[in-house]
Amino acid sequence: MKYEELYALLRRRGVLWPTAEIYGGAQGLYDYGPAGTLVKRLLEEAWAAWFVGLSDDFYRIDATDILPEAVVRASGHLENFTDPGVTCAKCGNHFRAETILEQFRPEGVDGLSPAQIGELLKQYPVRCPQCGSNEMSVPRPFNLMFGFDFGAAGGEKAYLRPETAQSSYLAFSRMWDVGRRALPLGIAVIGKAYRNEIAPRQVLFRMRAFTQAELQIFFNPAAFPLPFASVAEEQLPVLRVARRAAGEETPEPRSARSLADEGLPEFYVFFLVHMYRFFRDVLRYPADAIRLFEKSDTERAFYNRIQFDFEVKLESLGGYKELGAVHYRGDYDLSRHSAGSGKDLSVAVSGGERLLPHVLETTFGVDRNVWALADLGLVIDGERTVWRLPPYLAPSVVGVFPLMKKEHTTEARRWQARLRDSGIEAEFDSSGSIGRRYARMDELGVPYCITVDRESLGAPSLEARTVTLRDRDTKQQERVTLDALIVRLRASRVAPRPIPLNAVE
Amino acid sequence: MKYEELYALLRRRGVLWPTAEIYGGAQGLYDYGPAGTLVKRLLEEAWAAWFVGLSDDFYRIDATDILPEAVVRASGHLENFTDPGVTCAKCGNHFRAETILEQFRPEGVDGLSPAQIGELLKQYPVRCPQCGSNEMSVPRPFNLMFGFDFGAAGGEKAYLRPETAQSSYLAFSRMWDVGRRALPLGIAVIGKAYRNEIAPRQVLFRMRAFTQAELQIFFNPAAFPLPFASVAEEQLPVLRVARRAAGEETPEPRSARSLADEGLPEFYVFFLVHMYRFFRDVLRYPADAIRLFEKSDTERAFYNRIQFDFEVKLESLGGYKELGAVHYRGDYDLSRHSAGSGKDLSVAVSGGERLLPHVLETTFGVDRNVWALADLGLVIDGERTVWRLPPYLAPSVVGVFPLMKKEHTTEARRWQARLRDSGIEAEFDSSGSIGRRYARMDELGVPYCITVDRESLGAPSLEARTVTLRDRDTKQQERVTLDALIVRLRASRVAPRPIPLNAVE
Repeated sequence: MKYEELYALLRRRGVLWPTAEIYGGAQGLYDYGPAGTLVKRLLEEAWAAWFVGLSDDFYRIDATDILPEAVVRASGHLENFTDPGVTCAKCGNHFRAETILEQFRPEGVDGLSPAQIGELLKQYPVRCPQCGSNEMSVPRPFNLMFGFDFGAAGGEKAYLRPETAQSSYLAFSRMWDVGRRALPLGIAVIGKAYRNEIAPRQVLFRMRAFTQAELQIFFNPAAFPLPFASVAEEQLPVLRVARRAAGEETPEPRSARSLADEGLPEFYVFFLVHMYRFFRDVLRYPADAIRLFEKSDTERAFYNRIQFDFEVKLESLGGYKELGAVHYRGDYDLSRHSAGSGKDLSVAVSGGERLLPHVLETTFGVDRNVWALADLGLVIDGERTVWRLPPYLAPSVVGVFPLMKKEHTTEARRWQARLRDSGIEAEFDSSGSIGRRYARMDELGVPYCITVDRESLGAPSLEARTVTLRDRDTKQQERVTLDALIVRLRASRVAPRPIPLNAVE
Repeated sequence: MKYEELYALLRRRGVLWPTAEIYGGAQGLYDYGPAGTLVKRLLEEAWAAWFVGLSDDFYRIDATDILPEAVVRASGHLENFTDPGVTCAKCGNHFRAETILEQFRPEGVDGLSPAQIGELLKQYPVRCPQCGSNEMSVPRPFNLMFGFDFGAAGGEKAYLRPETAQSSYLAFSRMWDVGRRALPLGIAVIGKAYRNEIAPRQVLFRMRAFTQAELQIFFNPAAFPLPFASVAEEQLPVLRVARRAAGEETPEPRSARSLADEGLPEFYVFFLVHMYRFFRDVLRYPADAIRLFEKSDTERAFYNRIQFDFEVKLESLGGYKELGAVHYRGDYDLSRHSAGSGKDLSVAVSGGERLLPHVLETTFGVDRNVWALADLGLVIDGERTVWRLPPYLAPSVVGVFPLMKKEHTTEARRWQARLRDSGIEAEFDSSGSIGRRYARMDELGVPYCITVDRESLGAPSLEARTVTLRDRDTKQQERVTLDALIVRLRASRVAPRPIPLNAVE
């Protein structure tokens, strides 16, 4: 679907809409409605089951999204978390330098100084997208954090965190004591991050408040025990810097082993494989829509030693979009916070030696992936619109319908209650024809529907009775008992999980 | 347990700790560690299953926590969301007027003007808690919202929402179209709210960033169809204003019917009963520790027509503490936002008449209830500390132990994997004696442990094998098969749910 068509459908079905819509909205802020809330929550749970499930020593924490000033000073965000902005001298509108220069310089402006960007503005026939004027101001750095007074006394400042990662770094010392006091140690956060984007756009793609799911793995680079052999033959769709330089845009299949042979650390490739499997096997994105896009020295943040973005081709946004990444951040983060807090964050490793752990980060944009699930999953199939969500990501797993409102409602409510007693969410719907009800459930991605009819009332006990079960994707119908239904629904609701590292021989 | 003892235990076991602990913490901000994160999340899910489960027409949304200035101006927060603050002229420290006057005026200062509070400061021998000086400044109103510049242009302001309720009011119009266009309509939000408290204290009880679970029910006061008879005989531990005025502090049992006979609207009493059942039957707080504390005209916010706080007696905090409430807010909220947004929020009811819906709010402090679950559930039983959490609120439902690390680890990992494939979280632990492992699980509230031993390896297939299942509360042990174990664990993990209003005849 095209962008406008998809966004309109999502608004209409209550998946998401602009925050404070009755006030005309607030730029870069969106709210999720009932279906969106459930999909987002299940996506977070599937992410946690997969990434936190990768090791017994990976933990999930829930940290506040406000950071004291000392933290963002130490992390470098106070000084460096800026985006070059451009102002039109005529109409006064603000734009990201990257956006203004996009058509002339598709590779972006990451890593360029404001002065260099100023040169580009002169070099190209840049015009204001609002008023058409060519009087674009010299770029100024604009800090993207929301900062405010904290406390009653005045003089104290705090910031909304610009990335969830900082919360994991702050927790490292405490988690070292709570866990096994051994590396690798993983600390995951799913939560809000905030950026005062100069030009929010594309709904869930550049928001001012968004949800990240990030895992920070603290490790000893000299000894990261991994069952690399178990992933060595996996083929990854990779676009490395050298091929990009040759003008290639499509990825080539590369085995994990061959990437390691080329010099990427085994621990890095191992997590590339696991993130790729998450996209392909859990989210069920088409393998041929995914590419692992290596960022060059100048494109990645200076503290990232290696970075591959996970990009997925989305029709609604006209091409590949970044939905996640794996970053090797070295010991940058803990060394900054050791210095900033005055607390030595090094830990004892084998032989009494002390080491400042390195960090491998897997990052994942929750909102962006809700959008991607809609873009890739919502298909028009003749008259009907179907959201082909994996059943464990669907807002509800089963719709429960009485065939005739009068005759079958009581029995249908009984089925709903029995399913709920078994921990299975069941959506009741008695309005309109069965066809209309199927259509509503299809559009929301509900994978199964059951209909209670006259035949359902035949047997003496509910256990002996049957209902019609209809499958969203095959449209096949069959009669099932409650027990068989529960088994089927439960199995469909379990997202795939990896084997924990600790359990691999 | 006493406050300090409980807080120290929670920190040590990684349930929670101060945000940015390595920087000395940030006043009023806390992070949840692995166990706390899981308990909090399950508590949120149990709340949603109960309150959103009350009707097919109650929905959960996930709304951003940033509000544009126009919204908080319309809601009255910009003008009125203030707390009288007092400053010591000598040492410069700030305090809440309520705290400073607590010992002289236990009923609080709600509803008093700054001038009246100034009089009280002169009337009583008030001294600065920090330096002992008696030069306390005249109180000034201090707005409790965190506000900041929003957008790149400058001049635009936004605020962290001071209550999640506002997000539901903003969504009403959209949800009217997404739902059945009928009243009652419920919109629930579980999310962060933020208040720049003058004097944060008691860890999770007065935080600057905290999680609320609130349900706003929009209804027609002339026609709120409810099966009142189904709750009429429920006995509620109530402390009404008249008895409070007579000096009583203990509640008296009152039937729902008798409260309605006394003039409380049936719809109000109906939700009092359901919130009471949530505390008693889902959270399993001792019935005799709960009281429903009615707030008087001067104590409640002016827009609340009726307010009962749900208070629970907590040893760690020395008495009754508010953990939730039911507010009848009239049509205040939608009338303010109709005026503020210029959009008519009235809806068509029977006979083509239009009505501005009234709001009944159930509010619930998630963090406070995590604390209450710890206060009420953590018990010292001889040598061991046990967290008697309901199994559906426990961070993990089962611990999986190999009896001997060498011989039984592979088999224990198989059990863990099979449980996970069934959607059951299983915590692996192989370190230390079985007694030590039981103790660790007990302290985290894990209700079951299984141990794989030599006997477990006897039968040819895993299905035919058995393990020792041990119950946290009874300490009883028995041999179980995988199938029996799965049935038991699943059943224990389903929180009680109400019958949806729509399903009651």
